[in-house]
Amino acid sequence: MPRTLVRDLSAAIGQEVTVYGWVNTLRLQRRLQFVIVRDHTGLVQVTNLRDEVPTELEELIEHGMPSESAVKVTGTVVAAENVKLGGLEIKPTAIEVVSRAEPLPIDRQTGIDQRLDWRFLDLRQPERQLLFKVQTTVEEALREFAYAEGCTELHTPKLMGTASESGAEVFNVKYFDRTAYLAQSPQFYKQMAIAGGIDKVFEIGPVFRAEPSFTSRHATEFTGLDVEIAWIDGVEDVMRFEEQMLVHVLRKVHERHAAQISELFDIDVVVPEAPFPRYTMAEALELLRARGWDPKGEKDDLDPEGERMMAAIAEKQHGSEFVFVTEFPTSVRPFYHLRPEHDASVTESFDLLWKGLEITTGAQREHRYDVLVKQAEEKGMNLEPLASYTDCFRFGTPPHGGFGAGLNRIMMVMLGLDSIREAMFLFRGPNRLTP
Amino acid sequence: MPRTLVRDLSAAIGQEVTVYGWVNTLRLQRRLQFVIVRDHTGLVQVTNLRDEVPTELEELIEHGMPSESAVKVTGTVVAAENVKLGGLEIKPTAIEVVSRAEPLPIDRQTGIDQRLDWRFLDLRQPERQLLFKVQTTVEEALREFAYAEGCTELHTPKLMGTASESGAEVFNVKYFDRTAYLAQSPQFYKQMAIAGGIDKVFEIGPVFRAEPSFTSRHATEFTGLDVEIAWIDGVEDVMRFEEQMLVHVLRKVHERHAAQISELFDIDVVVPEAPFPRYTMAEALELLRARGWDPKGEKDDLDPEGERMMAAIAEKQHGSEFVFVTEFPTSVRPFYHLRPEHDASVTESFDLLWKGLEITTGAQREHRYDVLVKQAEEKGMNLEPLASYTDCFRFGTPPHGGFGAGLNRIMMVMLGLDSIREAMFLFRGPNRLTP
Repeated sequence: MPRTLVRDLSAAIGQEVTVYGWVNTLRLQRRLQFVIVRDHTGLVQVTNLRDEVPTELEELIEHGMPSESAVKVTGTVVAAENVKLGGLEIKPTAIEVVSRAEPLPIDRQTGIDQRLDWRFLDLRQPERQLLFKVQTTVEEALREFAYAEGCTELHTPKLMGTASESGAEVFNVKYFDRTAYLAQSPQFYKQMAIAGGIDKVFEIGPVFRAEPSFTSRHATEFTGLDVEIAWIDGVEDVMRFEEQMLVHVLRKVHERHAAQISELFDIDVVVPEAPFPRYTMAEALELLRARGWDPKGEKDDLDPEGERMMAAIAEKQHGSEFVFVTEFPTSVRPFYHLRPEHDASVTESFDLLWKGLEITTGAQREHRYDVLVKQAEEKGMNLEPLASYTDCFRFGTPPHGGFGAGLNRIMMVMLGLDSIREAMFLFRGPNRLTP
Repeated sequence: MPRTLVRDLSAAIGQEVTVYGWVNTLRLQRRLQFVIVRDHTGLVQVTNLRDEVPTELEELIEHGMPSESAVKVTGTVVAAENVKLGGLEIKPTAIEVVSRAEPLPIDRQTGIDQRLDWRFLDLRQPERQLLFKVQTTVEEALREFAYAEGCTELHTPKLMGTASESGAEVFNVKYFDRTAYLAQSPQFYKQMAIAGGIDKVFEIGPVFRAEPSFTSRHATEFTGLDVEIAWIDGVEDVMRFEEQMLVHVLRKVHERHAAQISELFDIDVVVPEAPFPRYTMAEALELLRARGWDPKGEKDDLDPEGERMMAAIAEKQHGSEFVFVTEFPTSVRPFYHLRPEHDASVTESFDLLWKGLEITTGAQREHRYDVLVKQAEEKGMNLEPLASYTDCFRFGTPPHGGFGAGLNRIMMVMLGLDSIREAMFLFRGPNRLTP
């Protein structure tokens, strides 16, 4: 029999159907056997009345299909008002066990490390199923927005011949008889696309960071969202692009999943309003110091505590979960960030914080070859390995800017997860390369 | 002034506009200066009438904005019937050179290696611009189809703790104090997602092959499309999914780009009809041998010559550019391909050829733990490093199957390109890691 999805059963009352799914729970009583079957669309109760002489079906339910076995259940759908799962149940006539489960090594109480060891079993939990449905919606909405804006989707190489930006955090790959490096970001390549005349470019793909970080927000491999836009008038164009993109994403997530997210994660999905509040770093530091942050006045960048405090300020002053911090000091930004005419000590750059967590870094890039080279020299950089980057600015390259965001951080904040390890399909950290 | 795109100029006759783009060509005559300006939407002629005393603008055009410089041209759009480019031209009032170009190191006659060295300049050619627009449409259509089918989009890890399928072709990564491996395909992980209760899964992302191959169809890094579907009744379900997906993709490409593809690549985009013809490998071998292929009768798999001949047969017998070859011998397929009940010498597998090039490999997978282990043992495999794979079949895993396709090969065949090096943004091969 062809498959009927659990969500479609209410339209099949009185009919014979076959449901494909997993044994979610078994409840074996003296007169009745209850099997809750789960597919990716919901749960259904299968109710088998025992005979005086046990039938083969009864024996199978009793001994042949332990919890989490994969089964095909054939039977008649009957209305049953008192059944919580959709007010219906299936009276089974046949069950096929397509894959019998051994006892599971984890349950809902298991700690995260062991759950990650058995991630595929952990994924069967409804929150995890929802997480990846929501993530799929997020990506769909990101692309809808990007396509509507005329973006070209690119796949930039992850294998590089020279280490990018900061050599220290780069993984080395044995590449035949030489060394390659794993890309930490598509930064260089997306700018190359702009120099190649592609008007707007975006990519969603893996990025690699060889940082031995064990915080709840770091992973050695994660999914990056990268955008770069040509012919901008200023970094404001980039921020406007990103905030409108996120409004579109959250509107779509709200439409499709708000109720389920509220139920399973106890989180309200708020569709933000653009523009998001903007504070220059100078303004942010002043506000934070007035509230006791960095009492020694030593810092020129936000730490996680400063980020949380800024979020609280933006929430209070503007009722916004999102806040842009702009004009980061030149000292904490890479050489290729453009500096405004009037002040070389800052950059036309921004971070975007969401509920106190940094989810994006962006900037207008320096597109003038001579200025770029000068800024690299000022930072004490060796120009020779940079040549294939700086060459991109010798043959007519328009003003441009862009941003990079972490998809997993976005999911983590959106669903209120404790750790990025919960926000990706298979986490990778300094001590974890499996499964 | 805000930007006006070249494609929108016909609606701006009589108005003052600013066009942002590149100097495509300069033609300097005694009385007139012609500048053809190019943006990502088209070309426009800018016509400057010289004065008796050269103006600053005239001097700028003459000496200050060589070919490929990035410029902003302000002027009035006027109708000009005899101008081929849209029957209009711009009478300039001001030009801003935002980035002056040095003489270019390549032109349209340059060979491929040097063009790849300067790929960002090569990208400015109209065919290359079109290639990535078409690829963006291909991905949009792939996802539209996948979403409509209820697929969840996943990002599987590219860093693995153990080498996948065939260790020989895997890149090694220095991962802190141990070795990691770059994923050759998401095979293992997408099956893990199925075991985790995700009904249909798809991914578009990088795959890595440490093969020292120098053919026109191989790269060490390329973009893979992977699909895996749970609860299938047989491999036919997988083939049906793929052919419908490709029909959807080609319909969309045809709608949007057929005219331009015909013009720039001299290729007709044909929207195929499903079902595509299917030949078992046994049938294929018989047909090929009757036509003189493999005269010694030694081969049990198709070589490139056999693939081209099969394509010609399918074209002749069914008028189809696409052909499935099915039931590959067990000897040439991995241990995890399911074998039909009646014949353990073949597998429930397929390749899809398009115009004679293999673009996909697919199969139903063996989901029964004991059979899977037996098949691995028969292939002489060491079960211990396979444990985290085989463990996925111990806790209730439904029948499933899927396929992997190469996006770049699809683009290569679609646009009739000579080499896969032309079909990706930045090619990676044994001797090429730059730019």
